[in-house]
Amino acid sequence: MKRIGVFTSGGDAPGMNAAIRAVVRQAHALGIEVIGIRRGYAGMIQGEMVPLGVRDVANILQRGGTVLLTARSQEFLTPEGRAKAAAKLKAAGIEGLVAIGGDGTFRGAIQLMEEHRIPVVGVPGTIDNDLYGTDFTIGFDTAVNTALEAIDRIRDTAASHERVFFIEVMGRHAGFIALEVGLAGGAEVVALPEVPVDVEAVAQGLLESQRRGKTSSIVVVAEGAYPGGAAGLLAAIQERVALEARVTVLGHIQRGGSPTAKDRVLASRLGAAAVEALAGGTSGVMVGEVEGEVQFTPLKEAVERRKDINRGLLELLRVLAL
Amino acid sequence: MKRIGVFTSGGDAPGMNAAIRAVVRQAHALGIEVIGIRRGYAGMIQGEMVPLGVRDVANILQRGGTVLLTARSQEFLTPEGRAKAAAKLKAAGIEGLVAIGGDGTFRGAIQLMEEHRIPVVGVPGTIDNDLYGTDFTIGFDTAVNTALEAIDRIRDTAASHERVFFIEVMGRHAGFIALEVGLAGGAEVVALPEVPVDVEAVAQGLLESQRRGKTSSIVVVAEGAYPGGAAGLLAAIQERVALEARVTVLGHIQRGGSPTAKDRVLASRLGAAAVEALAGGTSGVMVGEVEGEVQFTPLKEAVERRKDINRGLLELLRVLAL
Amino acid sequence: MKRIGVFTSGGDAPGMNAAIRAVVRQAHALGIEVIGIRRGYAGMIQGEMVPLGVRDVANILQRGGTVLLTARSQEFLTPEGRAKAAAKLKAAGIEGLVAIGGDGTFRGAIQLMEEHRIPVVGVPGTIDNDLYGTDFTIGFDTAVNTALEAIDRIRDTAASHERVFFIEVMGRHAGFIALEVGLAGGAEVVALPEVPVDVEAVAQGLLESQRRGKTSSIVVVAEGAYPGGAAGLLAAIQERVALEARVTVLGHIQRGGSPTAKDRVLASRLGAAAVEALAGGTSGVMVGEVEGEVQFTPLKEAVERRKDINRGLLELLRVLAL
Amino acid sequence: MKRIGVFTSGGDAPGMNAAIRAVVRQAHALGIEVIGIRRGYAGMIQGEMVPLGVRDVANILQRGGTVLLTARSQEFLTPEGRAKAAAKLKAAGIEGLVAIGGDGTFRGAIQLMEEHRIPVVGVPGTIDNDLYGTDFTIGFDTAVNTALEAIDRIRDTAASHERVFFIEVMGRHAGFIALEVGLAGGAEVVALPEVPVDVEAVAQGLLESQRRGKTSSIVVVAEGAYPGGAAGLLAAIQERVALEARVTVLGHIQRGGSPTAKDRVLASRLGAAAVEALAGGTSGVMVGEVEGEVQFTPLKEAVERRKDINRGLLELLRVLAL
Repeated sequence: MKRIGVFTSGGDAPGMNAAIRAVVRQAHALGIEVIGIRRGYAGMIQGEMVPLGVRDVANILQRGGTVLLTARSQEFLTPEGRAKAAAKLKAAGIEGLVAIGGDGTFRGAIQLMEEHRIPVVGVPGTIDNDLYGTDFTIGFDTAVNTALEAIDRIRDTAASHERVFFIEVMGRHAGFIALEVGLAGGAEVVALPEVPVDVEAVAQGLLESQRRGKTSSIVVVAEGAYPGGAAGLLAAIQERVALEARVTVLGHIQRGGSPTAKDRVLASRLGAAAVEALAGGTSGVMVGEVEGEVQFTPLKEAVERRKDINRGLLELLRVLAL
Repeated sequence: MKRIGVFTSGGDAPGMNAAIRAVVRQAHALGIEVIGIRRGYAGMIQGEMVPLGVRDVANILQRGGTVLLTARSQEFLTPEGRAKAAAKLKAAGIEGLVAIGGDGTFRGAIQLMEEHRIPVVGVPGTIDNDLYGTDFTIGFDTAVNTALEAIDRIRDTAASHERVFFIEVMGRHAGFIALEVGLAGGAEVVALPEVPVDVEAVAQGLLESQRRGKTSSIVVVAEGAYPGGAAGLLAAIQERVALEARVTVLGHIQRGGSPTAKDRVLASRLGAAAVEALAGGTSGVMVGEVEGEVQFTPLKEAVERRKDINRGLLELLRVLAL
Repeated sequence: MKRIGVFTSGGDAPGMNAAIRAVVRQAHALGIEVIGIRRGYAGMIQGEMVPLGVRDVANILQRGGTVLLTARSQEFLTPEGRAKAAAKLKAAGIEGLVAIGGDGTFRGAIQLMEEHRIPVVGVPGTIDNDLYGTDFTIGFDTAVNTALEAIDRIRDTAASHERVFFIEVMGRHAGFIALEVGLAGGAEVVALPEVPVDVEAVAQGLLESQRRGKTSSIVVVAEGAYPGGAAGLLAAIQERVALEARVTVLGHIQRGGSPTAKDRVLASRLGAAAVEALAGGTSGVMVGEVEGEVQFTPLKEAVERRKDINRGLLELLRVLAL
Repeated sequence: MKRIGVFTSGGDAPGMNAAIRAVVRQAHALGIEVIGIRRGYAGMIQGEMVPLGVRDVANILQRGGTVLLTARSQEFLTPEGRAKAAAKLKAAGIEGLVAIGGDGTFRGAIQLMEEHRIPVVGVPGTIDNDLYGTDFTIGFDTAVNTALEAIDRIRDTAASHERVFFIEVMGRHAGFIALEVGLAGGAEVVALPEVPVDVEAVAQGLLESQRRGKTSSIVVVAEGAYPGGAAGLLAAIQERVALEARVTVLGHIQRGGSPTAKDRVLASRLGAAAVEALAGGTSGVMVGEVEGEVQFTPLKEAVERRKDINRGLLELLRVLAL
């Protein structure tokens, strides 16, 4: 393999740049050229490509976002779009791809492989941590710490005003962020998409907590945990009991910022391993870190199998929220 | 004067604890006892009072929120409520008060003085910076930096996805936070309560900016700048032109967190000056910092006169947002 | 078991408070009383004990340092000192101990168990990550991120002045912090206690890097990697080649600060597991997290066996430092 | 004026990039071209120049360091060197200069003006805040907050171990950082270059403080306050009294990092004002912010007159350090 392409797609995640840097430098060490494809699949179709040398990725390790940009592409969802993309890759002499993103990115990659025989290795870059085949996705640790910092701030106000706060964090289908943030932030309750929310129990728990003398509480709600998110859950509770509470939606601040050490190391490791895999003839897989070791999982499994939350941590949160 | 009371009231602001510490220690240096009144005027009516010695305020300088708690009080809005509060103060031997808060706090203080002859000195503690008689209120600098950090994060996503973001910051009646954050965050546009928003001009400006090649933009909107805040303004724009944009409401994260150096120094200075004023027989004033010097302004003026934003900075923002 | 004691000892680490909170609340859930022993073994000998209820550990989860304080004790190194400590524990009705600290703490605990049959479970609280039996110690992730933030700042100056910086991080006997920080911070070289430093190779590598056009570099040095630490290593290099460089010793800033999400979750998990173990009759072990699962390791093994650094990451750093 | 040059020189300071951006964009608004001169006076002599358009300075507002780089130049200290520099400027059609830096930068600028009649306006960019003619220099607020954050971390350890810490901050000739950080960080004592250090008084004060029951203390020492800095002062104290204490030198971390809101706004304001002054025919001055307003001070005065620290704040620190 003489030349590979790398791109980012889907929602941006802190650490994507660290992964791009690792791809470029590991490839250089193996004598492989790297072409950066801008704007994900949309740019692939348009042939937006730039050669990336080792100095081109200097000083990006610590930056949030993605220097290769990211975009959605309706056209790539069509066979014609994918054919155009494949033609551009071939014209550029690209023999393999490193795809950095989440499940949407990987679904596209699977089609590209199946229809056009382009070898792809996926690197899990998404704050949601919802990919099977890796204990952590790139960006998750940063997003959790960003949300936690916001909760620590809100707790100042919650404690000073003796109020209850409902805080909505990202996670339409997965509660990894909510669970980790809830446990680390001392939340009274977390509401996750994976576990049906018992509104009555939450309502009674909050009242009981006030009776026990706890004057302020934090409830962490994953956006997909309840219809209407945090505001929806609070409204449902208020239909049952009298509870004054404020709602804060953390929103897009969770996506950005300089990546944590963990996300930079993970991204460096997985970016480099992806290139090694491609160079060694492996493709159709996502590279992940499982129990501390680099592992490969078929892309189909990565997107189709469901990674479950750690139910022990959920139980622990209940014990500690006294 | 042998004994004074100190309390915080209204929305909490970072630096309130630094002010409480300064009040206690400056009073100690002058041989005056300090009683902490918890939960603002509500606690005053209930007689929730604790003596505060110099060690009681150790290690609070760096904490957000207020260790004296804060609350709203309907009862204090009535003459009977204020009479109860005054009785409690007299029973506790409190000869003067340091009131840390915003305009609501000071309006209450004015009534307490007028009706019950209790000397009060106000300390401006509010993130909004909307008090006449001080260049900066305690908490403003921290709130601005917190909002700025959030905007820096969002910019990562805005740049990576080449999107426009409408970010709502605090400020129902005052645009100080929005203006400072907009200028520091490189916003394309800021919308403030003090300046009528020209929706058509904003819409055309954003389109023009895209035509000039700027692929992502930040619009900072004070919550009171337009009906419906950031979402309302975006909707109004979208009625005129096709513009895709995301909305993020920063919300309560702006209130909390460890105060910046500037807020801690300001709070220390004003807290100490308030005690010196009371001890010297001055009351009915708010202590502020004007052009670097401590100054006193009658409480009535502080709440009634309007402090205007710096229009030069607004003009500067327009020049720099290219 | 009806009553247990908890204490922190050795160097403080962010997350110790989260562990104390988890010990107290998990014990409460199991109907066990908790006595907090202040100032480690020194306080144990003096009988400095306070009952800890569930509300006593409210609002400490996010705080650096340890609310139970920590101290060194010469007296505890003698059999007489330990006998006094044991007598105090028995007098207080303490039937088991949770010891939060590093290898010195655990060596003391082993002696206490052997000589006085007091059941102890250890919780690994040290920023150094040098305990066998846990993938990560409490405080390590925070220390790494604090050091990384400092390096990111220094890199601004290094890049602006086109200089080489030698940055010394904590780690007298272990290079975990240096390796993680070096990889995450884009260091050119890391020097670790575990790997003999080849001064000639480092010198030539830095010169070669400058010849390749890299105008600024970061060298991360664990304090125990070379006699004299970062300054010693730089001096040794300057005896061989002409290299201008600055030295910064990060020092104690690495110990403090609010713990990261990871450290809070780890501390919560291990603190709770330690109580469950004690309650279930297990002692003489350290509770750790290995490959994501809670595991128990005999205290002797934890302090005597050496945990090696990940040599793959060291190799990865060399590849990425182009 | 059709074309101006801008450069940064001396130690880097957070906010220099914000100033560069403001220079470029304000010049654009006035129809003036901007040439960026790299590496300060060294690059000026070499003719290292790049045109800077409005998009070239996009996304640098929030970055620490300086994108124009900075360097020292021995050659510029000679008349021949300056003549070369002037010749390069003339060859490039540069009719005026904006010089961003500290007193060394401005001394060079004065010579360039006097010997070669090149109009220069200075912008105060230095963390030390030691320039007459501006209440604050660009970078000061960020440096103070960075040092404060470090002190907050160290305080965790100081409090947990009940220790005294001597913390050295930047400031060879000026104590602005030390005073601000000491007051904001709750230091027991600050040692400044401007005020002779009374070693005996500091020693007795620390012992007295321990007798009063304060178990941990922070002493902030400007590097130029005492021979040998913090370590030197501690040694001198230990010659008189028995005092255990740790020393931490914050060092270069104080120079870097993303600028605070205040530094970004100040840099934007002064950068723009410098261009307006040049365009209006004013030169030989430094632009500063005095009591909230933009003011111009002759460059000679800016470097020769001494700005004194606020002695009232020093007194306040003594009162609050109980």
